[in-house]
Amino acid sequence: MIKQAPLVMIPGPTPVAEPIRQAMAVQTYGHTFGKFVKIYKDCLAGLKQIFQADHMIVIGGAGTLSMEMGLVNTVRPGEDLLVVTHGVFGDRFVPMAKALGINVDVLNCPDGERVPLAQIEEKLAAKKYAAMTLTHVDTSSGVMSQPKEVGELAKKYGVLFILDGVCASAGIAEPMKDYGIDMIVTTCQKAFGTPPGLTMLALSDKVVARREELGTVAGYYTDIKNWLPIMDNPSNYFSTPPVNHIVALNESVKMILEEGLEARYARHDLIGRSVRAGLAAIGLEPVTKPAALAPTLSVVKYPAGIDDVAFRAKMEEFGLVVAGGVGSLKGKIFRIGHMGNICFAEVVVTLNAVERALISLGYEVQPGAAVGAASAEWYK
Amino acid sequence: MIKQAPLVMIPGPTPVAEPIRQAMAVQTYGHTFGKFVKIYKDCLAGLKQIFQADHMIVIGGAGTLSMEMGLVNTVRPGEDLLVVTHGVFGDRFVPMAKALGINVDVLNCPDGERVPLAQIEEKLAAKKYAAMTLTHVDTSSGVMSQPKEVGELAKKYGVLFILDGVCASAGIAEPMKDYGIDMIVTTCQKAFGTPPGLTMLALSDKVVARREELGTVAGYYTDIKNWLPIMDNPSNYFSTPPVNHIVALNESVKMILEEGLEARYARHDLIGRSVRAGLAAIGLEPVTKPAALAPTLSVVKYPAGIDDVAFRAKMEEFGLVVAGGVGSLKGKIFRIGHMGNICFAEVVVTLNAVERALISLGYEVQPGAAVGAASAEWYK
Repeated sequence: MIKQAPLVMIPGPTPVAEPIRQAMAVQTYGHTFGKFVKIYKDCLAGLKQIFQADHMIVIGGAGTLSMEMGLVNTVRPGEDLLVVTHGVFGDRFVPMAKALGINVDVLNCPDGERVPLAQIEEKLAAKKYAAMTLTHVDTSSGVMSQPKEVGELAKKYGVLFILDGVCASAGIAEPMKDYGIDMIVTTCQKAFGTPPGLTMLALSDKVVARREELGTVAGYYTDIKNWLPIMDNPSNYFSTPPVNHIVALNESVKMILEEGLEARYARHDLIGRSVRAGLAAIGLEPVTKPAALAPTLSVVKYPAGIDDVAFRAKMEEFGLVVAGGVGSLKGKIFRIGHMGNICFAEVVVTLNAVERALISLGYEVQPGAAVGAASAEWYK
Repeated sequence: MIKQAPLVMIPGPTPVAEPIRQAMAVQTYGHTFGKFVKIYKDCLAGLKQIFQADHMIVIGGAGTLSMEMGLVNTVRPGEDLLVVTHGVFGDRFVPMAKALGINVDVLNCPDGERVPLAQIEEKLAAKKYAAMTLTHVDTSSGVMSQPKEVGELAKKYGVLFILDGVCASAGIAEPMKDYGIDMIVTTCQKAFGTPPGLTMLALSDKVVARREELGTVAGYYTDIKNWLPIMDNPSNYFSTPPVNHIVALNESVKMILEEGLEARYARHDLIGRSVRAGLAAIGLEPVTKPAALAPTLSVVKYPAGIDDVAFRAKMEEFGLVVAGGVGSLKGKIFRIGHMGNICFAEVVVTLNAVERALISLGYEVQPGAAVGAASAEWYK
C-alpha cells in the first residue's frame, strides 16, 4: 500500500497548494531587490483589496503577534479595553492586555454560544473604551461572531474596533469599510493556505492616526510606525522581511483574487454545510450553536465512549490529521479545519476517515453514510 | 545568453542551498504532529550544541524581534542598560530600549573602529547595569567585536551579557559558556543560510532565572516564559510555529554539524581573507580597521569617482547583488556578504563582477587581478 503524507485537516495550518509550496522554495531574493519589491507591493495591494484596507502590514511572526500589535498600537497602558470572547483565542487578549498594562473588561459566554449584542451595547454605553476586540471565528469553539453588527455598535459608541480574523480571513468576508472594522489582525496558515510564519495587519487610516496620537509605544518590532514606510515602499529597509514567505503569500493572494471573493466565501460556506451534513448523518453534533457555526471549521462533540487520543490516532492511521480540543473542551471534542485551498475531495476523504475511525472504535456507523450525506448537500 | 537569477551576495539573506530550499516547500505539517515535533526537537538540540546553550527558542519573526526579546526578558523599565555599538545595528538597541522604558548608556566609536575594552570596563565599574548588549558583527560597518573579552568583563562586574549574533552566528564561534555570554539573539538568513523569517534566541539558565525574577513583562508573544515549555516539548501549544521554516532550519543545522563547527568557522575565515586579498589587489579597502575585520562580510570603500547606484546596477548586470551602505556610510561603501553555505566559487564570481563593474565605470583594473589574488590566498 502506498503510504502518503497525511492530509492536514486541522484548523490551521491547512493543506498548501502546489504554487504556494513552490513559491516557498524560490532561491531567496535580496529584500530590497527590484523583483522582490514588486512582489511585496503586489501582495500588499491584493490584500488591501481583500480587506478594503487603507494599509496592510505583513511581516515575519504569527497570529498571536498580530493580536499583540493590535493592542500595542491602539491602547495606552492604563486605558480601558473591552474583550468580547467566544473561546480560548478571544480570552488570549486578556493576559496580553495585562502584560501591556491595559485595563480589561471581558464579555464571555458558555462554550459554543455567542455573546448577545445587547450585552456588548450595554458595556459600550456604560464606559468609554479605547478599543474593543472581537474574534471573528474562535478556533477553539468554532463560534463565528457578528463583526458587522458589532461594527455598527463600535461606530455608534465611537470605540476603535479590532477584529481577530485569524480563523476567518480569506474564507469569510471581512470588508472593513462596509462593516466598520478599524483593524484586522490575522495570519496566513488558515484560509490563506500558506505555511505558518506571518503576522498580518489590515489597518484603516483611523488606526494610523491613533498610533500617531500615542507617541512612544511599548514595542519596537511591534510598532506599526516602523513598518508603515516599508509597506508603502518595500525598497526601504527596517528589518528583513520573510522574503520567501511573502512570495508564497503573493501566490495565495493571486489564487484568491482569481477565484473571486464572493465565490471563495460561497465555497467555504458550502464546504462547511457539507461537512456538517455528513457529520449529522452519523449522529455527530457540533458543540457550536447552529446560528454561530463557522464555514471554516467544525468543532465536534465525541459520541459517548469514544476516546479523544484513540480517535485521533485512528484518523492518522487512515491518513488524516484532525485537531483535539483546547481549554475547557480538551478531550471532549475534535476539530476539523475546512478552509483555504481545499475543495470537496478533501471533505470526502476526511468524512470517510471519520466513519472508519468510529467504526474501528466500536461506534455504529453505516459505511458511506457521512460521505453520502455530504455529497447530497454539495450537489444539491 | 542564459539569464540566471542573480547571486545574492549581500550580508543576508544569503544564497540558500538546495536541501534547505526544498525543505521550505514541504507539504506543511500540523504543528503538534509527531513527525514535526521530532524535527523541531532535533533542530533545537543541534542549535544548543552550536551555541553551548541551556535553552533555545526559535519562532516566527526576524532578527530585530530577537533583539527586542533580549531586552524585554532581562531588563525592567527604569533599569539601566549599557549598549556597546559599532554601527547601525548596535545603535538599534537604543530606541528599542527607550520604547520599553529602559534607561540606556551608549558606548560608540568612529565608523570601522572598535570600542576599546578599557572604555567598557570603565562604564561597568562606574554603574550597576541590569544588562549590556554587544553586536558580534555589525552588518553596517563590518566591525567584529570581542565577545570573549567582553564576556570576561561582564562576568567580572556581574552584568548580564546579551550578544547580538545576527551577522555572525554559525559563521563565527559563539560558545556561550566558554565566553560567558548569557544570551545570543540572532536569526537565520545570514550564516545559517536559511531564508529570512525566524527569531532565534540562545539562553543560559541565568537568563531564565532572571526572567522569572521580573514577574510580568511588557510583551506576550515576546515573553520567553510563554515559549520555553513549547521548546522543551513542541507537542505543547502556545502560538503556531513557522513549520516549514523550522524544517528548513533543521536542514541548515544538519549541514552545519556535518561540516563541523571548527571547519565551518575556518572556511568563513578563509573566505573572508580571500575576498579581502582580491579587493586589495585592485586597490579597494575595507572601511573596517584590520583588527576588526569580520569573516562574514566586507564593507568596502568606493574608489574616487565610482557612484554607488551605478556600481550596484552594473553588478546586477553581471548577475550579482551586493548591498549599499546604511546610516552614515550610505553612498560611500558597498557591502559583500560572504557567509553561510557558499564557498570559493561564489568568491570568484563576485570578484570577477566587481572587476567588470569597475572597468565599465572607468576605474582601471587589470582583468583577473582580484580573482587571481583571492585564488592565491585560497590555495595558499
